[in-house]
Amino acid sequence: MLPKILTHTFDNDEALPDLFKNEMEKHFQVIPYDEYLKSPETHDKDIVAILPWFATPKVDSEMIDRMPNLKIVSTISAGYNHLNVPMIRSKNIRVSNTPGVLNESTAEQGITLMLAAARNTIIGAEMAKNEDWPKNFMGTQFSGSTVGIIGMGRIGLSLAKKSIGFGCKIMYNNRRERTDLDIEAEYFANLDEMLPKCDFVCVVCALTSETAQFIKYKHFKLMKKTSIFCNISRGGTVQQDDLLKALEEKEIHMAALDVTSPEPLPKCHPLYQCKNCIIVPHWGSATTQTRLSMVQLAIRNVLQAINNEKELESEVFE
Amino acid sequence: MLPKILTHTFDNDEALPDLFKNEMEKHFQVIPYDEYLKSPETHDKDIVAILPWFATPKVDSEMIDRMPNLKIVSTISAGYNHLNVPMIRSKNIRVSNTPGVLNESTAEQGITLMLAAARNTIIGAEMAKNEDWPKNFMGTQFSGSTVGIIGMGRIGLSLAKKSIGFGCKIMYNNRRERTDLDIEAEYFANLDEMLPKCDFVCVVCALTSETAQFIKYKHFKLMKKTSIFCNISRGGTVQQDDLLKALEEKEIHMAALDVTSPEPLPKCHPLYQCKNCIIVPHWGSATTQTRLSMVQLAIRNVLQAINNEKELESEVFE
Repeated sequence: MLPKILTHTFDNDEALPDLFKNEMEKHFQVIPYDEYLKSPETHDKDIVAILPWFATPKVDSEMIDRMPNLKIVSTISAGYNHLNVPMIRSKNIRVSNTPGVLNESTAEQGITLMLAAARNTIIGAEMAKNEDWPKNFMGTQFSGSTVGIIGMGRIGLSLAKKSIGFGCKIMYNNRRERTDLDIEAEYFANLDEMLPKCDFVCVVCALTSETAQFIKYKHFKLMKKTSIFCNISRGGTVQQDDLLKALEEKEIHMAALDVTSPEPLPKCHPLYQCKNCIIVPHWGSATTQTRLSMVQLAIRNVLQAINNEKELESEVFE
Repeated sequence: MLPKILTHTFDNDEALPDLFKNEMEKHFQVIPYDEYLKSPETHDKDIVAILPWFATPKVDSEMIDRMPNLKIVSTISAGYNHLNVPMIRSKNIRVSNTPGVLNESTAEQGITLMLAAARNTIIGAEMAKNEDWPKNFMGTQFSGSTVGIIGMGRIGLSLAKKSIGFGCKIMYNNRRERTDLDIEAEYFANLDEMLPKCDFVCVVCALTSETAQFIKYKHFKLMKKTSIFCNISRGGTVQQDDLLKALEEKEIHMAALDVTSPEPLPKCHPLYQCKNCIIVPHWGSATTQTRLSMVQLAIRNVLQAINNEKELESEVFE
């Protein structure tokens, strides 16, 4: 018999979670959370792993105490702030996550949004429908432009490489200069010195106490009036009211946001009213291929834990 | 005094034609067509060049006969089917166009549209506005996919290079195999053999008698059901009713069109009703940078003709 795992409730309306379930069922007997809740005692003693998906099921001390054979909490996400890692580890249960596999998809979302803003894709689709096909409505060219990347981690580097395919020049701001980069990129220790030189600026850094709301009005003032600003990090890295003001005053040409603060951004929010702002619902990692890779990595972590391997592919020790 | 040129009417509502006019005025006394029409006889004997923009002014035999000092018709476009080249050349007037400079912009538009379709950018922007931020709405990943390019000319090659920056595998169909490519790409003499292997298919070939409506229903049937089809060539290369049928039957996942037949596509056209179809108003070359490059090349051609240089940068001999 296959080992039993507990994971989130699969939604039958979504084809994709079925794809995930099939992947899990190659290795495990899968107990979705809704089924588990009907009779926890039927499953508790057999469950060897919990795989939270969008932070569900919530893993608490009582749940772990009910599961004598639990080996691992293997979250299907890069982030793990929804888990009490010290508590779980104190009970001799391992914790793993799925970092790395979403780099490509998230960097791709950055390019997608910068191009959509630059080439007027959304307003263009709207105009076309109304038979308004002006020949002199000009976009901005991404190819050959200067792209400023704030935060040169793995996603930033992927974004840089994709941009280089368009002949772009890369500048970046980071806590420290990267001496290990396999691309040409100009480092700016001082963000204020980089911004006036960029045609596109993309925020990719993690949200930390240092980066919280660190992009302010003065930064938008420093950018070119023709520049396009993109955020694929977290909404909290940007002083959102300052961005709104900069857009309204046309300090920058456009903004394209995969992330806002809060999410969802309420219907009535004035950013939606800005014609020079594109907002999409935080889909950086939302591709079938990436989400499937996340599930597969979470599965590998569980299999390694069951085998008592010393090193998991991605273990969280925090 | 600067030499006099005749060009199209500048639209004061458009910032960009002013940019073009400024560029022209560095070298010439510029007569816009509306001003010319008020009193042609004032200008005819001084005009050394006509620079049509979007096929205006129309150059006919009578116009040329009225201009004894005319040296060149320098159209600000790659295409020149709006000019009667043999007639103009028979009067010892040179003809030039602006090829090449729009390659980057047009290839970029192909990537823009494939990404927007793949990552649900347009529907995403609409959903976000309605506070509908689903986490499980999945896109298709362009990075690492297989891209099939129909027509491996200069624009096709630029599209291939940009795609390679995303780690894509390139396949192409062309009249003949290109042995001069500086990229890795798999050639298919037979389009039908290539289509089932591609995740993205982009039409980039010129519209000729051979390529008119050559993409038909059977081709869409051959593509993967998950595939995304993009057209940045001319609407006339595709049997549009067949594309509509394929989209309605979900033979392919999505289409993204920079070009349609006719243009504008009438408001009532059923393609606009397809949720899996993105249409923008033929903006392949519509970036400030590219249009300015076109104007600058047209100017260089005129200056070379005035100097009686033997070879212009881009002369049309047809």
